[in-house]
Amino acid sequence: MVKQLRAARTRQALVLAAAEVFAADGYALASLPAICRRAGVSTGALHFHFPSKDALAIEVESAARRSVEQLVADRRPSAPSALHLLVTVTREVLAEVAVDVVVRAGFKLSVDPSRKNGAGFGCWWRAWVCEELLRAQRAGELADGVSPDRVAAVIVAATVGFEVLGAQDRDRIPPRHVEQFWSLVLPQLAAHGHQFAGVALSDS
Amino acid sequence: MVKQLRAARTRQALVLAAAEVFAADGYALASLPAICRRAGVSTGALHFHFPSKDALAIEVESAARRSVEQLVADRRPSAPSALHLLVTVTREVLAEVAVDVVVRAGFKLSVDPSRKNGAGFGCWWRAWVCEELLRAQRAGELADGVSPDRVAAVIVAATVGFEVLGAQDRDRIPPRHVEQFWSLVLPQLAAHGHQFAGVALSDS
Repeated sequence: MVKQLRAARTRQALVLAAAEVFAADGYALASLPAICRRAGVSTGALHFHFPSKDALAIEVESAARRSVEQLVADRRPSAPSALHLLVTVTREVLAEVAVDVVVRAGFKLSVDPSRKNGAGFGCWWRAWVCEELLRAQRAGELADGVSPDRVAAVIVAATVGFEVLGAQDRDRIPPRHVEQFWSLVLPQLAAHGHQFAGVALSDS
Repeated sequence: MVKQLRAARTRQALVLAAAEVFAADGYALASLPAICRRAGVSTGALHFHFPSKDALAIEVESAARRSVEQLVADRRPSAPSALHLLVTVTREVLAEVAVDVVVRAGFKLSVDPSRKNGAGFGCWWRAWVCEELLRAQRAGELADGVSPDRVAAVIVAATVGFEVLGAQDRDRIPPRHVEQFWSLVLPQLAAHGHQFAGVALSDS
């Protein structure tokens, strides 16, 4: 039992150290010895848990996805509408990027040109945004003529842009920029009369 | 004279080949031999023109910036307003990203985590967007309460996001997505009565 606990802790330390190194240096330059040093773990222990750098990166992306999925699951019950949930989650995910290195590394890995076969965190995020917009449309929350598919592309581009820029320079995504995005976009997006924009933008 | 012409051609072939390799593999994995092979140039010739991979990347970013500056210079005389120019240039820059590998590589290098000291193409782009919004504000084109600084952050995040995603998968930035971005954002951005949005979005 103690042994299992120790193994789980080692694994977690490796994922955290790998996220820090991937976020700082990118996938290609991230070195396994640097990750071991940062985690305080031997290379033998690393290879016991992860056979390759690719396996480590897949685990970082999976952990990032689990974090965001958890955030979605936590917020869904209290969200009064699909659009609310979308605004809340994008806002909180971008706040997470600034403080949670695993989420930050997940987004960076998903657009890292040196990583050819990601674990699909970026794809999952795009699919989630699109799915939520389709839910919003079915619930009559979207203005007439708004295409969930096209709007999803805009929201994903903006969030990925905020993440990529924020990852380079943390002070580039202060929350007010994310609020600015929604305050520009929501009035065109939400169905007329939908009591949404005011609520969403004032409870931050 | 013939020699100078040949040297200029070799240099241009190297910049193009480097842009292709940087765009495909990222900075860290781009190999000088691969760039030479693609350019049909010896490694000796490469080192005659560029002492290092860094020097090549700086030249690619500078060439990308010159292309976008040229585009701005071409469009400025006929643009009826600063906002018009901003919409036209972002639209055309994103179209360029899809077809011009140097511009694509410039944007990718500017957010490449493995490249620590870029030539500032990304910074230049952010500064340009901000400057144009300030011009729009001075000319009374922006709605009351719109902050050029915050809106610049949104536009830069969206354009960088489109570029990063588009660079991964070209069909992810069809022009209609860029139009969707502006059709969402412009009505909130432009001063009431500014005859802008309709013109900009219909002449594409």
